[in-house]
Amino acid sequence: MSDRSFTYIGTRPIRHDGVDKVTGRASYGADLSMPGMLQGVVLRSPHAHARIVSIDTSEAEAMPGVKAIVTGKDFPVTRAKLPLGEAALDIHDISENAIARTKVLYDGHTVAAVAATTVEAAQAAAARIKVVYEPLPPVMSIDRAIAADAPILHEDMTTKGVPGSKAPTNVAARMEVKRGDLEKGFAEADIVLEREFRTVMVHQGYIEPHACVARFGEDGRAIVWCSTQGPFAVRDQCAAILGIDAALVKVIPSEICGGFGGKIVVYLEPLAMALARKAQRPVKMVMGRDEVFRASGPTSGTKIRMKLGAKRDGTLVAASASLYYEAGAYRGSPAGAGMMCLLAPYRVANFLVEAFDVVVNKPRVAAYRAPGSPMAAFAIESVIDDVARELRMDPIDFRLKNAMQEGDQTAYGPAYGPIGLKTLLEQARRHPHWSAPLGPNQGRGFACGFWFNGGMNSSATVTLNMDGSAAVVTGNPDIGGTRAAQALMVAEELGIAVERVRPIVGDTDISGMTDLTGGSRVCFATGMAVIEAARDVRSQLIAKAAKIWNVDPAAVTWEAGKAIPPPGTDKAQPLSVAEIAARFAHTGGPIIGRASLYAPMAGPGFGGHICDLEVDRETGVSKVVRYTAFQDVGKAVHPSYVEGQIQGGVVQGIGWALNEEYIYDANGILQNASFLDYRMPVASDLPMIEAVIVEVANPLHPYGVRGVGEVPIVPPLAAVANAMRAATGVRFTVLPLSPPRVLAALTTETRETVTA
Amino acid sequence: MSDRSFTYIGTRPIRHDGVDKVTGRASYGADLSMPGMLQGVVLRSPHAHARIVSIDTSEAEAMPGVKAIVTGKDFPVTRAKLPLGEAALDIHDISENAIARTKVLYDGHTVAAVAATTVEAAQAAAARIKVVYEPLPPVMSIDRAIAADAPILHEDMTTKGVPGSKAPTNVAARMEVKRGDLEKGFAEADIVLEREFRTVMVHQGYIEPHACVARFGEDGRAIVWCSTQGPFAVRDQCAAILGIDAALVKVIPSEICGGFGGKIVVYLEPLAMALARKAQRPVKMVMGRDEVFRASGPTSGTKIRMKLGAKRDGTLVAASASLYYEAGAYRGSPAGAGMMCLLAPYRVANFLVEAFDVVVNKPRVAAYRAPGSPMAAFAIESVIDDVARELRMDPIDFRLKNAMQEGDQTAYGPAYGPIGLKTLLEQARRHPHWSAPLGPNQGRGFACGFWFNGGMNSSATVTLNMDGSAAVVTGNPDIGGTRAAQALMVAEELGIAVERVRPIVGDTDISGMTDLTGGSRVCFATGMAVIEAARDVRSQLIAKAAKIWNVDPAAVTWEAGKAIPPPGTDKAQPLSVAEIAARFAHTGGPIIGRASLYAPMAGPGFGGHICDLEVDRETGVSKVVRYTAFQDVGKAVHPSYVEGQIQGGVVQGIGWALNEEYIYDANGILQNASFLDYRMPVASDLPMIEAVIVEVANPLHPYGVRGVGEVPIVPPLAAVANAMRAATGVRFTVLPLSPPRVLAALTTETRETVTA
Repeated sequence: MSDRSFTYIGTRPIRHDGVDKVTGRASYGADLSMPGMLQGVVLRSPHAHARIVSIDTSEAEAMPGVKAIVTGKDFPVTRAKLPLGEAALDIHDISENAIARTKVLYDGHTVAAVAATTVEAAQAAAARIKVVYEPLPPVMSIDRAIAADAPILHEDMTTKGVPGSKAPTNVAARMEVKRGDLEKGFAEADIVLEREFRTVMVHQGYIEPHACVARFGEDGRAIVWCSTQGPFAVRDQCAAILGIDAALVKVIPSEICGGFGGKIVVYLEPLAMALARKAQRPVKMVMGRDEVFRASGPTSGTKIRMKLGAKRDGTLVAASASLYYEAGAYRGSPAGAGMMCLLAPYRVANFLVEAFDVVVNKPRVAAYRAPGSPMAAFAIESVIDDVARELRMDPIDFRLKNAMQEGDQTAYGPAYGPIGLKTLLEQARRHPHWSAPLGPNQGRGFACGFWFNGGMNSSATVTLNMDGSAAVVTGNPDIGGTRAAQALMVAEELGIAVERVRPIVGDTDISGMTDLTGGSRVCFATGMAVIEAARDVRSQLIAKAAKIWNVDPAAVTWEAGKAIPPPGTDKAQPLSVAEIAARFAHTGGPIIGRASLYAPMAGPGFGGHICDLEVDRETGVSKVVRYTAFQDVGKAVHPSYVEGQIQGGVVQGIGWALNEEYIYDANGILQNASFLDYRMPVASDLPMIEAVIVEVANPLHPYGVRGVGEVPIVPPLAAVANAMRAATGVRFTVLPLSPPRVLAALTTETRETVTA
Repeated sequence: MSDRSFTYIGTRPIRHDGVDKVTGRASYGADLSMPGMLQGVVLRSPHAHARIVSIDTSEAEAMPGVKAIVTGKDFPVTRAKLPLGEAALDIHDISENAIARTKVLYDGHTVAAVAATTVEAAQAAAARIKVVYEPLPPVMSIDRAIAADAPILHEDMTTKGVPGSKAPTNVAARMEVKRGDLEKGFAEADIVLEREFRTVMVHQGYIEPHACVARFGEDGRAIVWCSTQGPFAVRDQCAAILGIDAALVKVIPSEICGGFGGKIVVYLEPLAMALARKAQRPVKMVMGRDEVFRASGPTSGTKIRMKLGAKRDGTLVAASASLYYEAGAYRGSPAGAGMMCLLAPYRVANFLVEAFDVVVNKPRVAAYRAPGSPMAAFAIESVIDDVARELRMDPIDFRLKNAMQEGDQTAYGPAYGPIGLKTLLEQARRHPHWSAPLGPNQGRGFACGFWFNGGMNSSATVTLNMDGSAAVVTGNPDIGGTRAAQALMVAEELGIAVERVRPIVGDTDISGMTDLTGGSRVCFATGMAVIEAARDVRSQLIAKAAKIWNVDPAAVTWEAGKAIPPPGTDKAQPLSVAEIAARFAHTGGPIIGRASLYAPMAGPGFGGHICDLEVDRETGVSKVVRYTAFQDVGKAVHPSYVEGQIQGGVVQGIGWALNEEYIYDANGILQNASFLDYRMPVASDLPMIEAVIVEVANPLHPYGVRGVGEVPIVPPLAAVANAMRAATGVRFTVLPLSPPRVLAALTTETRETVTA
């Protein structure tokens, strides 16, 4: 596995898409123009919660340049569900989220869309659409949503997972995992700590706003160009929302500048398609940043009650937790994932973790990097920090004592194969950062994090040219290195220079069916398909070499990019890929390799982060001054990308911990829908993030690969909070640790509370 | 074979690309624009034959808006040869044809190219490039070229095929095929006729001029968008001409409006690439119609001496022919193909056919629909018409008596498999057209034609979506129905609606290596790859169904688009493609089918045409008044396309016969480089061409398909000339039968000459 020697895997070639991206030639969602193209804009709800009494578009339709207007009435009601791996997308909710029907459920909820010859004309027309609303009281917090007298978002909602639950409620689901005897477990504990944690909605903050161009032919065939993580998912969602045959829809993924889970569900695409169909002209739609904040993303705000019990020697014996996750306006928060991740790093004999999916009058949440896991880790890693402190144990030693290892059964079900948690904890403890001196007002925190890493459907095609160069086509938009990783894999299997492999992100017509770029699945699952397709090419090369030599293919071996004749074959010399390819015409034709597979969820990933934070006690401003992230990646295919993924995840986690938050007023109107008022960290806010790659091979992948991209966002919330605790003596249980909150806490001399 | 029953094959669905093409949305060579794109123009030689003494670009380079200028010095000298099926493209000649080095060899030969911000700026700069020429005497005819004192085009040229041939000569090659004893054969003949025929250069006349856009990245990676019959051929030619690695070049075929063989060899593409590399900006180049005529296409002018001997009962006993084909400025006329086609329809025991490839100071000839065959057929089918007349035999009966059939050995080598020549001749003789009355000044002619129909490299990928729809990707630009035919084949194999199959013309990155669209090979060879790829999908569907039923895949059958469980399988119902596809995730993943093959030359095609011509004896104007074309197509996959191919070929042949010709002045300057002066037939010139499809299945193809597109251009030259003979009593041996020539002949009362 990881100790096998590779020629190309693990090297750092210049990325194939690099020059196009740094020169600005790469085409993103808003970069396509078509002849006769119209511009589409969205009319959004100014209310957080209201009934739509009437919509009158007649005056708007008469405005100059206006070619089409659509409202909820232009879309069928559907109960379709689309498979997404083992889960399913509820098209009803995605459809109503894309355009409201009888009610608007959050500030910014789409009510109508207008296509006109210019953006200005479309905006002017949208302003003349007369919508009569009957405002309803907004539900803006978990506590309000679960209160007995709460206003109700969906009159027909019952609580899934609670037998006998009756409508109406705002609690969409309750889930639990448990083991052992909780009461007995806590009774055995020498120390029990309990805390309640809160986080608020934060946005994925991708640089590129949602954007698309849709064209609808007279023959009913549609083309959608868009910035997406999953072209096949867009195709199927749009077809279901419009009630047309998905076979008529082709989705071309543009380059994508960030998604982090937020570009899986459709927003603009079905609107642009409906407008294009009505106007019979192509329609471009691009969100403004305010629209991105108001009506796309974000991830859940949460309330988590966490209780841990440990023996004096540091053994965890009992854990209980109640996780409440805001779903936004429609069911489907990542509460269940949070529940499953919470105890993933630790052996605890007795536990009960319950999770609640709660609807509120905020945008429907979307996936965000390791969805649900960071908030759960914030809770448990904070409490563990306090338990270790109470026991006067080194926090890493404490975690090592309780760390999961191969063979241990996860809280959520299966047993682990080989995992790198203990290895990375040992490396962290030995790392100079852990013992480096701290300056004044500085504190050091540590936290762990976990993500499952996904599998799902993947396909790949590898074609060989007559000059021995190759191309590899998959259906995964390149967010974090798809192209470079896949080219490396083909180069490795065929023994040709990585520069001579052209990695292609295919559209829904030219690539085999492939699930989205997300879940940290691409390098793992699609990578497996690429390797298998390249091996399919290699076996055909061997067959051709055997034909040239007139020998049995089974006797031909493959070494360092060459077919090797069996010993004693007369006059036969090893043949390179290019030498065999040059003889296509005389050996039965060209070569295409292909593979399709459904990869099971596999390759669990762990990280451990050390954070040094410095706090200005006069202003409450805190700054991360040093940060080291250790992560078991199985095998780093292109280490620069792996480091980049780790660094990016850490930075997003730091932003979440320190500054990012959705701020709503009393009426449920978002107050900070811009990058000026929604504070994300920028390069000057941060030190260099040191990424330490640990490689414990994943036996489920031919190279040992695990997913990388999601784990690194999990530990930072707690790592920062633990560093803050160390720097200030204050245990913060509410994020973000923004200057006003920190200053208030330091001023009132709030101190930690310890339950016996 | 053809008597098997098909569900989709043989139907006439609306073509998948139809709406885009009739609405003008389809994008052709000149339809792409890129940000920052420059416009490129070509400076062409005003001489037919001259030495380039010097080129001074300094003044032009200083002109406003000029970003790059290239001359021959910017291109390496190469001796590379590229495989093209069994043949090879000589890159040296293609390169020098694309841009002259030391000599210009024809009026319009490229000398330099300029890229500037506008076409006007580029043209202004091109006009300031100072080229000093030393004019040489031009060689404008075969007779002049082969004369002992001929001026020489290439000082190092010897005659290939003639041992001991010494440079210099203008005869690039001599070839021959022979059998039996010629002298004895002619001695046995009761009648011997001998004639000398001449045809002149004609152009393919595709509506869309050559056009391309090239981009060159800082990383050395290039993209070429162009109207081409062979994206892989463009990729490899351009890379060889520029001396770069073909793996760095991606060629995207635009839609193509006509090629007919003329869009295989590159003209503008390497110039645009070189300019783009120098300017580091994308460059678009589009030929004007005058440039298309002067410097692309055409096919050879010819001189053919043809002698036939027959017995009184109509048996052909001897044939000899000498074929001289103009190659234009560089070796490579289709003289060899003409030689092999000449006797293809007929059994002749004793023959000698020799062919000469002759260079002249005219544009390098390109392939043109059944290259070389129409001129050969003009000669032999004219003489056969005269022999039949001398023997007072019905011309179809005469041909039937001598027609080749299964098992007969071709003049050029292999024996025929099942062929449809006799079948179509019998159908033609029974057809009402053959016995319909003729009006005054009308005559009826008949002629046959043959084409090999090609094989070569083909690849196909078929992907299946979760909704059971499919896509098929090949690398063949859609000239004559590639998309529709391939969709029909996938529909047939999988049993899904043809509208749910999306046929895709891939670029060089996304499609398996595939030779060009030409040689009537696509429906045959690439079609076989498509069928094989679809069957690969089907066997994976069967495997999945077997998995669902938990039975042996070998026991599962396939009927009418459904997997059928083995008898007695508990609760198992037949599963459709869509039903199996919906369960990808639970049966091991998605499905990609693929196939690559090298198809041998196969599926010889024959046609027989009846032409009624009416001549105005006062003006010499003649008009085709009725035309019926019989052709053995093996199996018509999409009959409308087959009929269209036949009609199109006939019309081009009629134009060649009646009006089309390159007219040069004494200095070798083309006088009619426009559609106003180069007279091609338009719809109002012609009757409806009736196409009669004959289906004698080709056993080398799973559906019995033969190539279709080339055969129909072969008979018209002779069919028209034979009708003219019948209408006027004059045997014309020189084409075209333009009004001045016909009038002159009728006025001088020229009559046929018969050699006894």
